[in-house]
This record gives sequence, structure tokens and C-alpha cells, in this order.
Amino acid sequence: MEVKATTKYFAEFIGTMVLVLVGCGSAVFAGGHIGFMGVSFAFGLSVLTMVYTIGPISGCHINPAISISMTVAGKLSTQDALGYIVSQCLGAAVGAGIIYFIANGNPDYDISANGLAANGYGTGSPDGYSMIAGLVAEIVFTALFLLVIFGATSEQAPEGFAGIAIGLALVMIHLVTIPVTNTSVNPARSLGPALFVGGDALSQLWLFWVGPIIGGIIAAIIWKSLFSK
Amino acid sequence: MEVKATTKYFAEFIGTMVLVLVGCGSAVFAGGHIGFMGVSFAFGLSVLTMVYTIGPISGCHINPAISISMTVAGKLSTQDALGYIVSQCLGAAVGAGIIYFIANGNPDYDISANGLAANGYGTGSPDGYSMIAGLVAEIVFTALFLLVIFGATSEQAPEGFAGIAIGLALVMIHLVTIPVTNTSVNPARSLGPALFVGGDALSQLWLFWVGPIIGGIIAAIIWKSLFSK
Amino acid sequence: MEVKATTKYFAEFIGTMVLVLVGCGSAVFAGGHIGFMGVSFAFGLSVLTMVYTIGPISGCHINPAISISMTVAGKLSTQDALGYIVSQCLGAAVGAGIIYFIANGNPDYDISANGLAANGYGTGSPDGYSMIAGLVAEIVFTALFLLVIFGATSEQAPEGFAGIAIGLALVMIHLVTIPVTNTSVNPARSLGPALFVGGDALSQLWLFWVGPIIGGIIAAIIWKSLFSK
Amino acid sequence: MEVKATTKYFAEFIGTMVLVLVGCGSAVFAGGHIGFMGVSFAFGLSVLTMVYTIGPISGCHINPAISISMTVAGKLSTQDALGYIVSQCLGAAVGAGIIYFIANGNPDYDISANGLAANGYGTGSPDGYSMIAGLVAEIVFTALFLLVIFGATSEQAPEGFAGIAIGLALVMIHLVTIPVTNTSVNPARSLGPALFVGGDALSQLWLFWVGPIIGGIIAAIIWKSLFSK
Repeated sequence: MEVKATTKYFAEFIGTMVLVLVGCGSAVFAGGHIGFMGVSFAFGLSVLTMVYTIGPISGCHINPAISISMTVAGKLSTQDALGYIVSQCLGAAVGAGIIYFIANGNPDYDISANGLAANGYGTGSPDGYSMIAGLVAEIVFTALFLLVIFGATSEQAPEGFAGIAIGLALVMIHLVTIPVTNTSVNPARSLGPALFVGGDALSQLWLFWVGPIIGGIIAAIIWKSLFSK
Repeated sequence: MEVKATTKYFAEFIGTMVLVLVGCGSAVFAGGHIGFMGVSFAFGLSVLTMVYTIGPISGCHINPAISISMTVAGKLSTQDALGYIVSQCLGAAVGAGIIYFIANGNPDYDISANGLAANGYGTGSPDGYSMIAGLVAEIVFTALFLLVIFGATSEQAPEGFAGIAIGLALVMIHLVTIPVTNTSVNPARSLGPALFVGGDALSQLWLFWVGPIIGGIIAAIIWKSLFSK
Repeated sequence: MEVKATTKYFAEFIGTMVLVLVGCGSAVFAGGHIGFMGVSFAFGLSVLTMVYTIGPISGCHINPAISISMTVAGKLSTQDALGYIVSQCLGAAVGAGIIYFIANGNPDYDISANGLAANGYGTGSPDGYSMIAGLVAEIVFTALFLLVIFGATSEQAPEGFAGIAIGLALVMIHLVTIPVTNTSVNPARSLGPALFVGGDALSQLWLFWVGPIIGGIIAAIIWKSLFSK
Repeated sequence: MEVKATTKYFAEFIGTMVLVLVGCGSAVFAGGHIGFMGVSFAFGLSVLTMVYTIGPISGCHINPAISISMTVAGKLSTQDALGYIVSQCLGAAVGAGIIYFIANGNPDYDISANGLAANGYGTGSPDGYSMIAGLVAEIVFTALFLLVIFGATSEQAPEGFAGIAIGLALVMIHLVTIPVTNTSVNPARSLGPALFVGGDALSQLWLFWVGPIIGGIIAAIIWKSLFSK
């Protein structure tokens, strides 16, 4: 059954909003209670659950790096890629806005001190990792993420399990890389908080578009040339 | 095969009892050991396991906000909605009662100091979030929960995985919102402990009926008008 | 295809050995690192993985309370129940023995101080819960565990997911009840460590046979009379 | 459909690189934040996700002990076993190299102090466990791991769930044995970091080839003689 383009775009809007709301929200509201491990599960489970919710509608990319990688792999039209990416950015912004609204209900919250779980390197990195380390991490782990996505949604993979594999891949990526860049592998997820926080989050935003997109393209090339068919 | 109404209602009674017993019980008995992350998994896994246990019998709502949302979406009769909600409230009360009984076997337990994992805002919020922040959180996250439920149980979704998606959705919702309201998204779950604890838990109970029900209705409207068929 | 009785019994021996080795082993070797939450996952995942390993061979009871409940429900012959339970007890003893051997490779380990993750109440309860609280907890949570098992393995439940539901049910049961009795819901799991530790673990062992067996029988009666067919 | 040998070997290279990058990387970058429990999930989820990614291509061994055990069980040719093992070792080395590169972007990182999550016994064991304890643990837990693999991929097991069972088996194995040997059960995973760290990691490397290979062979014999067909 054909799904209308606007329905797909709205699904991507909702899905990316949920990703930011749950992932970044867990860090902002509960990071001090649940630690990096809890935040890792929040991010990954938001993708896992959204795959089963909007997967049949839009494919549940909710990540511009995925949409670009899918376009390179010939699985998404350029026009839809554009519609998807715009929707994802809007969703991420709205998600970050909802976090900001709720956070302000906490008398101890101060956006300049507590932020919105933005991504960063150098002074913006949770543990002070350099720009080049952050860039390599974002490229490598986004490539790895996309390999899981191509593999788990291929025809040879068992049906229905893709959401589990993809969601838990994002859990493990966060378990490794939160200390490095606060983990992006998703340009929209980086954009949302940066719009509200400004400063470093905005001036360093380029890396979280460049890195994940390069990683996504590398994975598309590897998968297409070596593993597909 | 047709299941008798009383059997369905009894299933909802059992399921909601388990949800409260496991979710609130983990906070009361083990909260100091397992933290908010452990409590998040306890709540979510209680729903995941109950979906595979009583899902084929009653649909495993075990939450008045879900039953009302399903009624709005035309998937549950008004009469069954009433039977479900009454059973859920009774189950939650019994679940809270069992926790209270076991807790009293701990010489250090004092209900006025340790409570029963009731929900709250302002002075009743774990981290002091305001009433409006709590209300927005309950509306938004219940809507998000219901979108997962509508999506994961739709005909296009892969069969059998709904319990995993829905249960892990509740895990992630708790990872984000325990600090805000102690997480309800379920009026019966809020009622159970409030009956025993009284005080703030009872006077603030209205928010945990109003918020989740509004959220559930919003999700039903979004799903029906945009994503269904 | 018919599986030989001795093959089934050997599978139950191996499975129960793994349950004790992994569950109690995680507490003995790593409890100070991973906390009650880590131990909860170790116990539950040992059952989850064993269901997919020996489930097709013996049904993967690896728990006398389950075998007795299945006999009451008419799903296991009395003769097989006996063979299963003896094998489970032997497996639990061997599992505890392997833990004890490895633990002695740690120069700081002392069985009289560190134990083997035995179950207990009163002075033997991690947080000092009374005998009656422990007994009620073991009855209620074993009944709940068996309801999940009957439900997830019923014909109406989606195929293949039983291992996930049952394993994660044991995770959540531990998240709630480790502070109360160190969580048994399995007489063989209690027997294994008690044989090596002696003292309270042995004198309190009766409760971890009586409680789980009563809980298992209650669940069999509820399921058969209300939910089956 | 026949997959070319070089494609399979490349898949094993990629998969083992991901295993080391995610598992050891989580310990090196985030160990202080996520603890042994977080590291356990990182290792296990790397295998879970790789099974759904490269499982249909190479079978996703990504572990010489598995390839040898499969050869003993008659499921892999000796020639492929050799190709697999060489690829796994190369992948592990590259994975460790990427961790080392990123870690050097952290000004506080020093390989001689922080290492690369190498395996060890005695002075090389996280909690000081002896050589014999480490050897027994590696043999027993690798055997257990292989039993899960044989069981979950057997014809009687439900289709599609093998990745979940096998990945979560590795989670539970780490929950138990990180304090003992930092958990290997995989000679390639031990080789990768040892090449960069040298010292104890290299001089103790033999145990993490001998132990897992013995465990893998024992499991192949048990499965073939008792549980298969």
C-alpha cells in the first residue's frame, strides 16, 4: 500500500521528536540519577520503539545521516531525502523545545549551566576529547550504525527483528561514545539542542553533520559493493 | 475464539496488580539499591511480560488511559472500557496492599517516611518539578506511549513484537520522567499507592488521571486521522 | 520427535547448573561491581538463554517449582517431575561447586564472610525482612512467574517469544525481591549454595521449597480454571 | 545462495573489529562512567547486532573459539576455519587500533596506565584471581557460550531469535566474569588489545587461546553426542 509523502514526513517529524525528547530528555532530567548507561538505553530504546511504530509508514530513519546513506544506496529518492531531513530537523527542534519547557519547571534548572545534552568536542566533550578524536568517532560509529541498518533490513535477515538490532546498536554506540562527543551519529539530534543552547553547541555543530554524513556514505558504499545481493 | 467478559476483566485485574507490585515494589523494596534505572526496567518489564501473558486474553491494557484511548479509537466498547477500568483500579489497590504488607516485614520501613512510590508534583515530585511541568510531561509521554501501542499493534507491524516495543517504551518513559512526577502515564498505577499513603499522593491524584487521559485521547486522534489505514 | 528421558534430565541438569553458575556467580564474583541490578539481569538472562538452548529438549524448567506446577497443570508426568527435580538439584549443586572453586582463586574470598549468594529471611535477608514477609514474597512472585510461563507458552501467544518473556520476568522479580530474600522462586537455586554454606542458608532452606511450590501450585490452579482453553 | 569465501572473511573481519571496538572501547572510554554492567551490555550487544548484520553472510562467528568448535562439530571446513580465524585476528587488531587512536584524543589517557581492556590473570586480573581460577572460568564459560550457540541455532529452536539469545549470553557471561579475567571467551578479542599494550597482556595471552578453545571443543562434543538430532 502506498503511503502519502506528507504522511511519511509527518512520521519522521514525530519519530525524531521522540528520539530527542527521550534521549536528550533522559540526560537533562535524569542524567544525575541514571548515569551514561541509563541515557544510552533511553536513546536506543527510543529508536527501537519508533521502528515498530512508524517503521511501516516511513521506514523510521529519524536521522539525516541515515536518509542520505539510503539515498546513496539507491533506496530513497532525492526528493524524499529532502522532505525527510527537513522533517527530522523540525522534529528535533520541537523535541528540544519540550525538554526546555519541562526543565524550566525545575527550580534548580539553568540552561546555561545544565544545557540540553548538546554534542561537542574539546571543551564541549564530556571528557575533553579532541576535535579529531570526535570526528573519527562520529565517522566510525555512524558507519557501524548504518552497517547494522543495512544488514538487519536486508532480505536475508529474519523478519521483524530489525527494530531490536537497530535500537540496541544505538544503545551500544552510546555506551562507548558518550564520553567522547556526548554521541551524535545523527545531525538532527545535534541540531535540536544546539538551537536552544547556542554557544559551543552551535559553533561545533558542523562536526555532527560532517562526521555522521561521511560515516553514512562510507557504510552505503561498503554494503553495496561487498555485501548486497 | 470469544473470551468471556469476566475473564477479560479478571486478566486486567491480575495484570495491573503485577504492574504495581513489580514497578512500585521495586522502588519501595530496592530503590536504594537499583536506582531510577532499575525501577525503570521493573515497570517496563512488568508490561512486557504481561503482554505475552494476558495479551491474548484481554489485550493487556492494565491502564485506564489506554482503555479510554482505545475506546476513542473505536477498538473497545464503552461497556468493556468501564469493566476494564474498574478491574485495573482494584488490581492496583491490591498490588499496593501486597507491597505494604511485605514492606512492613522490614523493621526500618515506615510508610509515612518511605511511602509506596506514589506520583506527585511540586513537593511530591522527586526533584521538585512544578505542577505545569508535571502535567505537560504526563500528557506528552502518555501520548507517545499510546502512539507506540497503536503502531506496534497495527496490521503492518511485524507480528509478536508488540510486547517488546510497548514494554521497552515504558522503560524509556520512566528513564526520562521519574525525576519529574515519579512517572505515572497510568491513572490506576497512581491510584493504588495513593489509597494507602494519603496526603499529597491523594490530593495530587487528579493530575495523574487528567494528564494521561488527555495524552491518550490526543494519541488516538493523531493515529486515527494520520497514520491508520 | 521423541526425546529420550535421560536426555531431558541431562538438559535440566545443565540448565540448572548454568542458572546457579551465572546468577549466584554474578553476585559472588561481581556483586560489588554490578549491584543488585546487574545480578537481576544475570539471573534472568541465564533463563532466557537456556530457554533457547534446551527449551526444545526438556522444556527448560530448571526449577522444581515449575516442574511441580506443570505436573499439577497436567503437562508433566509424575515420573518425569521426579527425574527433572533430581537433575535440577544435582545441577544446582555442581553450579555452586564451580563458583566455590573459582572464588577460592581470589585471595580475598572467604566463604564464611562472602557466602555463595544463598537465600534467607530475618538475619539471612539482605535488608532484614521477616520470615512472614519472605514467605509471602516467595509465594506471590513464584505465582506471578508461573503465570507468565503458562501465558507465554500458551497456544494463543506468539511463537518464539516465550524465552524473552520468561527470562525478563525473572529479571523483574529479582529487581523487586533481592532485598527481601535474595530472591529464590526456585528451590534448586536455593539448595545449591546452601549445601556449601551451611548455617542459616541450610536451616532456612525449607522456606524456599515451601514458598515457591505453594506459589507454583496457586498459579497452576488460577491458569487452569480461569485462563486456559 | 552461495556467498564467496572472501566476502565471508571480510564479514568476519568487520564483525570482530566491531566487537573489540564496542566492547573494549566501552571499557576504555566509558568504564569509569558505566561500570562493569555497562561494559557487559556493550560486549553482548555488539554480538547481538552483528548476528543480525553479518549472520546471513558468514554465520557471524567473530571468535576463533567458535570457529574451531564449529569445525569440530562438522559445521565449518578446516580451510574456512583458517580464513575465519585470520580475519578475526586482523579485525580485532584494527578495532584495538581505532580505540587507541581515539583514546589519544583524551589528554588524560595514558596507555601504560589505562590500557586497552586487555585480559589477564593474577596481577592482570581485575580482582586478582589466580591463573587456575581464570583458566577454569574461561573453559567453563566458553563451553556454556557455545552450548547456547548450538542450541539457539539448531533446527528445533524458533527462527530469528538466535541473535538475541547469543548476544544476551555474552552479556551474562561478562556480568559474571569481568572481575576474574576481564572476560575473554574469545582469543581474537584478547589478541587485539595485547598487541598494543604488550607486557602482561601479551605474556598471559596463551591462557585466552587455550581456555576458550578447550571450552569450545568440550561444548561441541557435549552437543553432538547428547543433544543433536
